[in-house]
Amino acid sequence: MIDVKTPNVVVLGAGYGGLVATTRLHKQLGVNEANITLVNKNDYHYETTWLHEASAGTLHHDKVRYGVKDVVDNRVNFIQGTVSEIKRDEKEVVLQSGETLSYDYLVVALGAIPETFGIEGLHEHAFMISNVNGARLLREHIDYQFAKYSNSDEKDESLLSFVVGGAGFTGIEFLGELTNRIPELCREFDVDYHKVRITCVEAAPMVLPGFDKELVDYAVAQLERKGVEFKIGTAIKQCTEEGIICQKGENDPEEIKAGTVVWAAGVRGNPVIEKSGFQEMRGRIKVEADLRAPGEDVIFVIGDSALVINPEIDRPYPPTAQIAMQQGEVCANNVAKLVKGETNLESFTPDLKGTVCSLGEDDAIGLVFGRKLFGTKASIMKKVVDNRALYMIGGPSLVLKKGKFKIF
Amino acid sequence: MIDVKTPNVVVLGAGYGGLVATTRLHKQLGVNEANITLVNKNDYHYETTWLHEASAGTLHHDKVRYGVKDVVDNRVNFIQGTVSEIKRDEKEVVLQSGETLSYDYLVVALGAIPETFGIEGLHEHAFMISNVNGARLLREHIDYQFAKYSNSDEKDESLLSFVVGGAGFTGIEFLGELTNRIPELCREFDVDYHKVRITCVEAAPMVLPGFDKELVDYAVAQLERKGVEFKIGTAIKQCTEEGIICQKGENDPEEIKAGTVVWAAGVRGNPVIEKSGFQEMRGRIKVEADLRAPGEDVIFVIGDSALVINPEIDRPYPPTAQIAMQQGEVCANNVAKLVKGETNLESFTPDLKGTVCSLGEDDAIGLVFGRKLFGTKASIMKKVVDNRALYMIGGPSLVLKKGKFKIF
Repeated sequence: MIDVKTPNVVVLGAGYGGLVATTRLHKQLGVNEANITLVNKNDYHYETTWLHEASAGTLHHDKVRYGVKDVVDNRVNFIQGTVSEIKRDEKEVVLQSGETLSYDYLVVALGAIPETFGIEGLHEHAFMISNVNGARLLREHIDYQFAKYSNSDEKDESLLSFVVGGAGFTGIEFLGELTNRIPELCREFDVDYHKVRITCVEAAPMVLPGFDKELVDYAVAQLERKGVEFKIGTAIKQCTEEGIICQKGENDPEEIKAGTVVWAAGVRGNPVIEKSGFQEMRGRIKVEADLRAPGEDVIFVIGDSALVINPEIDRPYPPTAQIAMQQGEVCANNVAKLVKGETNLESFTPDLKGTVCSLGEDDAIGLVFGRKLFGTKASIMKKVVDNRALYMIGGPSLVLKKGKFKIF
Repeated sequence: MIDVKTPNVVVLGAGYGGLVATTRLHKQLGVNEANITLVNKNDYHYETTWLHEASAGTLHHDKVRYGVKDVVDNRVNFIQGTVSEIKRDEKEVVLQSGETLSYDYLVVALGAIPETFGIEGLHEHAFMISNVNGARLLREHIDYQFAKYSNSDEKDESLLSFVVGGAGFTGIEFLGELTNRIPELCREFDVDYHKVRITCVEAAPMVLPGFDKELVDYAVAQLERKGVEFKIGTAIKQCTEEGIICQKGENDPEEIKAGTVVWAAGVRGNPVIEKSGFQEMRGRIKVEADLRAPGEDVIFVIGDSALVINPEIDRPYPPTAQIAMQQGEVCANNVAKLVKGETNLESFTPDLKGTVCSLGEDDAIGLVFGRKLFGTKASIMKKVVDNRALYMIGGPSLVLKKGKFKIF
């Protein structure tokens, strides 16, 4: 009798990609076939795509997260820890605690972090919509600005000035929530609504670059109606304690005083990728068709840390939950095949069903199955998309527990 | 026919004293007898005795205030404005807006402000439980400390350290609420309860100086059980951005790092009193038996700005809502008498029914009609006292609207 060791399959990250991969791996591999381990910093998963709501204070952060144990079978070994490095030669993952995990197959689904493009002061002074802690901090910071304004004798109106850097999806969705939240905050803190200033600064020449113009025009008009001032083609040069310095083309730099600066203009891959010596571009690995890292037999990379080129435009697909979950499925299939000794790995091709960008609880724009959607219809579709993600990870019970149903 | 001008009766302040005086004056004097004007900074009255709850975040600030117009008849002329000075020679009140009001009879019920006894840094760095704006700021500040702590990689435990300066009624009642609120905040922000530190620093040799020792021992034991550390006989020497420096007797000064310092160790009269050239002690006027300021025929002073000596102990009565309201009644009677040409003014004698000190929503200590009360019984009595104040000012409808009924 030959003593065959049960292989260790380790998944890093319980985001959209990692959770789908883990649940699918558990379904396909019996306990005698593989030891599945999931590593995540927190004992919960959070809906990255809903964080703008928690950040603006329009949705409680407990509604945007659920326990890993709620969706992952308890035969999966869950380790709460922060990954520090992947030692590819030793086939080991090192955690910040010092603990190491051996793997035979590794799924890297570590997600993204904000990209500040080296702009001075952003790390120190800007808020980022990147996780539950950051969202909660931003929510509390906004409230605190109103409380300070109310309590001060000499009114410093920069307390009521908000700058959002970036008019991509995160920036626009956050503005949709913030403009809904502001009137509530004005009532709560006895503040005159007209004193509030909201500025969106975007370096690219348009809002939601690359999106359908008619839909973008609708979004801009709706947000302007709710008080947002757009500064397009304008780059943030510096973020300070008092606000930002920005510049449009060759114009003179302009200072916008603001008690709150939110940076929502891009993400890059997880630093662990760079630290571990992979070939990468801004922390993202250009994966093979089967989702393995180039030159790696047993390391798969999915989600925001993976780079997949859209051949139609010869540019990378954007980092979205939709793609991460689809990669999670394909990656789980491929790992299961390798564990079972099969070699005919699947190729990943994104199946893009569409994109919806929320403009607050009851408004949105979307391109879904090729159809343009505005307002209520798009907003309903956004909630369908959100519930779909819950369904993919936790099935109907998670949808019932955490789903969005206020759709009429 | 002689043209007799209708006299102007002006009431300054819509606190407990001013509101009772105004409503009673309106009942006693017809529109042909007097023009009654009430001046107040805000268009609402707030329950000073409930502010510790709004400050800790255990009761929403809208529950501790109600509109002046809700309780004052619309035949009373209400002016929202901040009093800047009383010009006694001209019989005029000057507002910060520059507006002046002539009076024939004046009721000064301007309340108190915190007394910092010249301790360095308190004005700049400590929070005060003195009005709705300040309470709201403190509530938001506390939340923000927890959010910051959660979001930081290197945990600064001083964010979770709270110092309350003063173990008088306000300090103790705030500690009761804060200790109830902390576990909620720990859940809200995923913070380990054991990291929170609450210190109460009191210069006097005991908690609740002058109160019954058995009751005080009960209060201290209850608060210690909920995590409060008492430093008695210890003076705060300085408040800084990082916390406080305090000193017990001749011991070495000790620094307590704290992200939140609350100063609750005393009040003084309104600065308008000093500015207007009255004889005063720390902004309070030692009034005559009929509640007039010494040497003044038409100026009455009531509430926290009035000083009345308790002959039994030859010390001033404490500034309480109970006394302010009783003074409001007597003062209204006396003004009405003067308006009607009567000269037999009433003398004011406090009718002290008792004192209850809350230790949180469901706990309290009290001395009521000579009986000692602890726990639930005292807590119910506290709510009775709170509702009684509402009844005195706004009758049964205000009690129904703003009263505290969760008493079992």
